[in-house]
Amino acid sequence: MNDRLNRLDSSMQQMGLDALIITDPKHVYYLTGFASDPHERFLGLVLRRGDEPVLIVPALDAEAAHAASSVQSIITHSDTDHPYDLLKKQLKGRISSLGIEKDQITVSRFELLQASLEAQSYHDIGPILQSLRVQKTPEEIVRMKNAINLIEEVLRQGLTRVQVGVTEIELVAELEYLMKKLGADGPSFDTMVLSGPNTALPHGVAGQRRIQNGDLLMFDMGVFANGYASDITRTFAVGELGNELTTIYNTVLEANLQGIHSIRPGVTLASIDQAARSVIDRAGYGPQFMHRLGHGLGMDVHEYPSIHGNNSDLVQPGMVFTVEPGIYVPGLGGVRIEDDIVVTEQGVEVLTSFPKELTILG
Amino acid sequence: MNDRLNRLDSSMQQMGLDALIITDPKHVYYLTGFASDPHERFLGLVLRRGDEPVLIVPALDAEAAHAASSVQSIITHSDTDHPYDLLKKQLKGRISSLGIEKDQITVSRFELLQASLEAQSYHDIGPILQSLRVQKTPEEIVRMKNAINLIEEVLRQGLTRVQVGVTEIELVAELEYLMKKLGADGPSFDTMVLSGPNTALPHGVAGQRRIQNGDLLMFDMGVFANGYASDITRTFAVGELGNELTTIYNTVLEANLQGIHSIRPGVTLASIDQAARSVIDRAGYGPQFMHRLGHGLGMDVHEYPSIHGNNSDLVQPGMVFTVEPGIYVPGLGGVRIEDDIVVTEQGVEVLTSFPKELTILG
Repeated sequence: MNDRLNRLDSSMQQMGLDALIITDPKHVYYLTGFASDPHERFLGLVLRRGDEPVLIVPALDAEAAHAASSVQSIITHSDTDHPYDLLKKQLKGRISSLGIEKDQITVSRFELLQASLEAQSYHDIGPILQSLRVQKTPEEIVRMKNAINLIEEVLRQGLTRVQVGVTEIELVAELEYLMKKLGADGPSFDTMVLSGPNTALPHGVAGQRRIQNGDLLMFDMGVFANGYASDITRTFAVGELGNELTTIYNTVLEANLQGIHSIRPGVTLASIDQAARSVIDRAGYGPQFMHRLGHGLGMDVHEYPSIHGNNSDLVQPGMVFTVEPGIYVPGLGGVRIEDDIVVTEQGVEVLTSFPKELTILG
Repeated sequence: MNDRLNRLDSSMQQMGLDALIITDPKHVYYLTGFASDPHERFLGLVLRRGDEPVLIVPALDAEAAHAASSVQSIITHSDTDHPYDLLKKQLKGRISSLGIEKDQITVSRFELLQASLEAQSYHDIGPILQSLRVQKTPEEIVRMKNAINLIEEVLRQGLTRVQVGVTEIELVAELEYLMKKLGADGPSFDTMVLSGPNTALPHGVAGQRRIQNGDLLMFDMGVFANGYASDITRTFAVGELGNELTTIYNTVLEANLQGIHSIRPGVTLASIDQAARSVIDRAGYGPQFMHRLGHGLGMDVHEYPSIHGNNSDLVQPGMVFTVEPGIYVPGLGGVRIEDDIVVTEQGVEVLTSFPKELTILG
């Protein structure tokens, strides 16, 4: 068994669990090296105390699983098999306590699992996987830097396509084309290009609006590469901005810098949110910063930890998360500046390197 | 309330439910017109018998929800609120039986829901939504035809980029660029371009392999447009194919045609799978067709119904699904031909129109 499986096995023993079932495809990848999207089909990694791990995969993924998985024992099921029967056969004998990913398994699947396995109790192993994943290894940081370098190169090349009259959607098409061309697996979420008043929508969707002079232009995007995500936001000016937007920009930049400056092992995640938020509050824009400061980043583009004002969890070395304060004024526009950082033994390393000073395009 | 909400309300009464919570973002869109991706944040449409429906959305989607939702009563929550408390406040008074989407809610969320609402029983409303969604309205068919026209135009233009020496990934980049340029919201799933022996992987992923003379070249792709998905597969020859691959191609084409020919209201879904599969069985390739014949298509790229040999559900007018037989011979190659069809009162209309005869490129 590899190191991650060994650590999982120890946790299983500590929790007094008889067996575990891992059903999140990302966790199957994390633990076995086999990446797949089973859609609605059943995919599961089964660990029973004292037994070798077994991977249950849809038949049409059999060849790919054998090629990629470090777990050698692989059982396949076709679309007419009942995968929960296979599971029951695999976990022969009585299961007293079973570990499952409660954040991942739906109520429907859980009811099938219960009917088939009849374990006495079910325990959430999400926190175990979270604690494994939160501490990124040097190899993972290398992959994440690669995903970040890719998206920054996409942004660099994409900016050469910006001109008055081009639509948000056209820029999205160019950017996603560059992602693939430069070797990314694809966007890590819907690429966001917003212009003018649309920048005031924190979750806006790129549309047919054409870039105009005097616009703010916001890019929020990332890629998946080798299983890891990047996520960056930069906001630019197209031509000269008015005074209020310039003030807003500089306030957000200061909040971004103060947030990053406050990061070191042992402080609370809440304190980082507060460090950034207090800059915006002091400038009088507190109500216009209505989202958390950031989120964990790794195999998922949103993962543990969540950087918000009520999170008293402590910052640990190896955590990777975003710092992305913003101010959004309906009708006028919005600015967000987002970096990806990794917590080091001494403090923080900022992984994103794209310049953050207010830049006027064109 | 709109027609869909009215039908849902009637079903709620028939099932004797006090209230419903809809948490699948697609269903919120289907019922209110508000499309969003709440990520891990809480989004819910709450219906209590006799009350007006209420939409609970993350604060940062408030503006977008007000602009798009036909449900006017909207409650927002910030990242530091507890959305289940809001839910409890909304569903004031004792809830005896609550309807939830068991296919969508995770065990974690369900436990929060239980702790907060303490309903006596929880019932799956997935089948109700499924029965609403399965019967596509004429307006939905128009949207789906649009998504299909888009992907067929992408394929037509994309084929002009095929030449010996280009990689699978480069073709994916070109195709996804065309999707956006032509007005799609984006791919409806990971665009698949496979070449040569890679075509033998039913779930293969486009890679760095370069197109060679004598290759099979398979495209499986679709787009989302206005909330609806398309999904098409075509397999081409790059230069002349050998005898066995030609036989395989013609067998798959015959299976596709026989499958489509067998579709009419009142027959079982299983019989359609069997009609196609028997062609492949007779040709001796039965074991090399190891997946179901097709899947429902609509707001999701995989939805009810599933077209497989054990599904005794009956074909109904308004159903839209794929017909996609395939033969996969490891080391040699694979062929799949996939159409999207809608069941009519009399029989079937094939929505995809891209030619299916074996075509030699270049």
